[in-house]
Amino acid sequence: MSDSVYSVSEIVGSSTDSVDDAIRGAIKRASRTLHNLDWFEVTQLRGRIDDNERCEFQVTLKVGFRLDDRPG
Amino acid sequence: MSDSVYSVSEIVGSSTDSVDDAIRGAIKRASRTLHNLDWFEVTQLRGRIDDNERCEFQVTLKVGFRLDDRPG
Amino acid sequence: MSDSVYSVSEIVGSSTDSVDDAIRGAIKRASRTLHNLDWFEVTQLRGRIDDNERCEFQVTLKVGFRLDDRPG
Amino acid sequence: MSDSVYSVSEIVGSSTDSVDDAIRGAIKRASRTLHNLDWFEVTQLRGRIDDNERCEFQVTLKVGFRLDDRPG
Amino acid sequence: MSDSVYSVSEIVGSSTDSVDDAIRGAIKRASRTLHNLDWFEVTQLRGRIDDNERCEFQVTLKVGFRLDDRPG
Amino acid sequence: MSDSVYSVSEIVGSSTDSVDDAIRGAIKRASRTLHNLDWFEVTQLRGRIDDNERCEFQVTLKVGFRLDDRPG
Amino acid sequence: MSDSVYSVSEIVGSSTDSVDDAIRGAIKRASRTLHNLDWFEVTQLRGRIDDNERCEFQVTLKVGFRLDDRPG
Amino acid sequence: MSDSVYSVSEIVGSSTDSVDDAIRGAIKRASRTLHNLDWFEVTQLRGRIDDNERCEFQVTLKVGFRLDDRPG
Amino acid sequence: MSDSVYSVSEIVGSSTDSVDDAIRGAIKRASRTLHNLDWFEVTQLRGRIDDNERCEFQVTLKVGFRLDDRPG
Amino acid sequence: MSDSVYSVSEIVGSSTDSVDDAIRGAIKRASRTLHNLDWFEVTQLRGRIDDNERCEFQVTLKVGFRLDDRPG
Amino acid sequence: MSDSVYSVSEIVGSSTDSVDDAIRGAIKRASRTLHNLDWFEVTQLRGRIDDNERCEFQVTLKVGFRLDDRPG
Amino acid sequence: MSDSVYSVSEIVGSSTDSVDDAIRGAIKRASRTLHNLDWFEVTQLRGRIDDNERCEFQVTLKVGFRLDDRPG
Repeated sequence: MSDSVYSVSEIVGSSTDSVDDAIRGAIKRASRTLHNLDWFEVTQLRGRIDDNERCEFQVTLKVGFRLDDRPG
Repeated sequence: MSDSVYSVSEIVGSSTDSVDDAIRGAIKRASRTLHNLDWFEVTQLRGRIDDNERCEFQVTLKVGFRLDDRPG
Repeated sequence: MSDSVYSVSEIVGSSTDSVDDAIRGAIKRASRTLHNLDWFEVTQLRGRIDDNERCEFQVTLKVGFRLDDRPG
Repeated sequence: MSDSVYSVSEIVGSSTDSVDDAIRGAIKRASRTLHNLDWFEVTQLRGRIDDNERCEFQVTLKVGFRLDDRPG
Repeated sequence: MSDSVYSVSEIVGSSTDSVDDAIRGAIKRASRTLHNLDWFEVTQLRGRIDDNERCEFQVTLKVGFRLDDRPG
Repeated sequence: MSDSVYSVSEIVGSSTDSVDDAIRGAIKRASRTLHNLDWFEVTQLRGRIDDNERCEFQVTLKVGFRLDDRPG
Repeated sequence: MSDSVYSVSEIVGSSTDSVDDAIRGAIKRASRTLHNLDWFEVTQLRGRIDDNERCEFQVTLKVGFRLDDRPG
Repeated sequence: MSDSVYSVSEIVGSSTDSVDDAIRGAIKRASRTLHNLDWFEVTQLRGRIDDNERCEFQVTLKVGFRLDDRPG
Repeated sequence: MSDSVYSVSEIVGSSTDSVDDAIRGAIKRASRTLHNLDWFEVTQLRGRIDDNERCEFQVTLKVGFRLDDRPG
Repeated sequence: MSDSVYSVSEIVGSSTDSVDDAIRGAIKRASRTLHNLDWFEVTQLRGRIDDNERCEFQVTLKVGFRLDDRPG
Repeated sequence: MSDSVYSVSEIVGSSTDSVDDAIRGAIKRASRTLHNLDWFEVTQLRGRIDDNERCEFQVTLKVGFRLDDRPG
Repeated sequence: MSDSVYSVSEIVGSSTDSVDDAIRGAIKRASRTLHNLDWFEVTQLRGRIDDNERCEFQVTLKVGFRLDDRPG
């Protein structure tokens, strides 16, 4: 059977700069251990607020990656 | 009866730059065929990841526009 | 009993610039009346579209803040 | 193949009188451009509040209509 | 153990007059077979549209009723 | 920064007459303590059933109101 | 009052063959005790996996049936 | 066809002692009228607060039970 | 701006044979009026039950299609 | 109009002992500033894990309290 | 403590044949790296549509597997 | 970039004693293979009922843990 199978991992990236940066940072870190990254979906957008009312964005992502289809 | 009626369309905008850009691009494109655009709501935030781990943001929006109330 | 109790308020920030700005503006305004702000969670991302198809981002947040634990 | 196919559109009706009126107004308006309307489902019930605290009901509906099955 | 136990049933009432009537009709019918009705919660609001664009409201309710606590 | 910030409160109105009345009663009561009410959204529709099978509608609303933007 | 009232029951059908079979089996079994079955809605699709990695599909359905409207 | 079919009932247990007790009380009461109870799922956790700020836990459960497969 | 924009339509396919057939029928019918169909997502799986307990599967799909990017 | 109006506040209680304790602590603290507390609903159950793998339960509650109905 | 602990992984199977095949293919692939597979739950059903309007079913599953309870 | 990245795993703990025990057991087991555990969130509360109507609580948790930020 040649149809592809993907696996999905959930990660949380953070950034004091922007939502976009938190997403990119999480994907960059995920790519160090997961191969064939293919798509992501944001499932939660939260953050911390420090004593000076600055916020750190925390973005939860599901990332999908293609599993190699070598014989088991 | 003079109360307004709105219609809602669902579109997906994409951008390799930012979430904000993906939203703006989708609205700009929608305005070419839909008139009296009034509001939008983001219903999904996903994206593709290419081989160099760069991501393309894909934002799904519902956009509401006022229907003209001319006699039918 | 010394365990902390937090209260959660819901606010909506807006910005014609970016989603990030709408979040930061809402938190800045909330900090004028609420103390010990600790975290936030985005629960809705919508916006208005004006006649020139420019959009105003409207971000709904839940913000959590620690209640002082002085004797009642 | 003779099985029916339906299409679903999303509309928003409004009324200062009642929720029922907002639903009926939306369906009446939809029937001017969509044929074979068959069912509806309310997905959101909101409204505006004016300076005298009177409210305008805004009801979001999905409306389903049967597509004609003529040869393409 | 004297704490009460409730059971929950799901019913659908309909009315061509109003949403309120559909709710009341469903509760009236439920009371013919279920005793000690205590509360209800609306879980879905849909309807049919006939050829003259008149709609029949169909309201799905969960109704809770207290179970007698006689020895089993 | 001149962008508006809104606050959201959650209230529950009740009426033995109609769903519409329960909504209007809640907004009227909210306007006694909250100013600049702007919109509402119904988040839950439940009720009590008394011994004669009459029901009291209980409607949960989120109401949004504009925060004054005076210097803090 | 002549408007119909429906009741909704929740059942779970299972099949090692297919999702379709699990749905049909549940409806067949429900029809032994419930009359006037009218519609169903799938609310959950799960299953068991045995030691040989074969799966048994388990489909949760809500089934609606018309209540007779004889005098109580 | 020998595949099992299950039915699902919804009940609400209550206890002034603990969440665990409210769950166990509901299952004990359900077992007086339903046979072959197999699993449960908590769908809501609420409660009442009395004048002395003591709370009564009210836990809503779905309970699944196997239907006998005797010929109809 | 060269980023793609997609539009999303909601359709309902039906089949007395299988869930798969209901999906395929809906997509086949959608392709008669919509071009560049790209993906679909099942959002609801329901059906009708006739007097002989046979069921007609009704599958609600969102289908996405690429909008041409010709100058407006 | 004599129908009651309730207000709903969201709070987070915590306890290293038990989920029940976290709920009771939050209600006790809320009763110091809110009067006529009437019901609660758990909306989220999370927690922190410290370096010794002990967990602190954090329970988010909505609490409803009756608003006095004195003339405005 | 002898109570079992399970881990849950999320995978996506695909098939141009049927939804059932996509589920079975995902479970077969998962069993190559995960042991003691016990149950699955479908969380999303989507697909791709190619230029000839044929669709590839993509089914997202959560799969649960029992963790061995050897001393750490 | 020094912002932290977290990974999220989903586990199911069980206990015949209490919900609290099922949560603690799952976290204890997770800590044998995952380091830097930081938070958890309960996503489902179910259980099995045995022939004597005793229940085994099964709690599904998402657990978050900090990924080391060593160079890849």
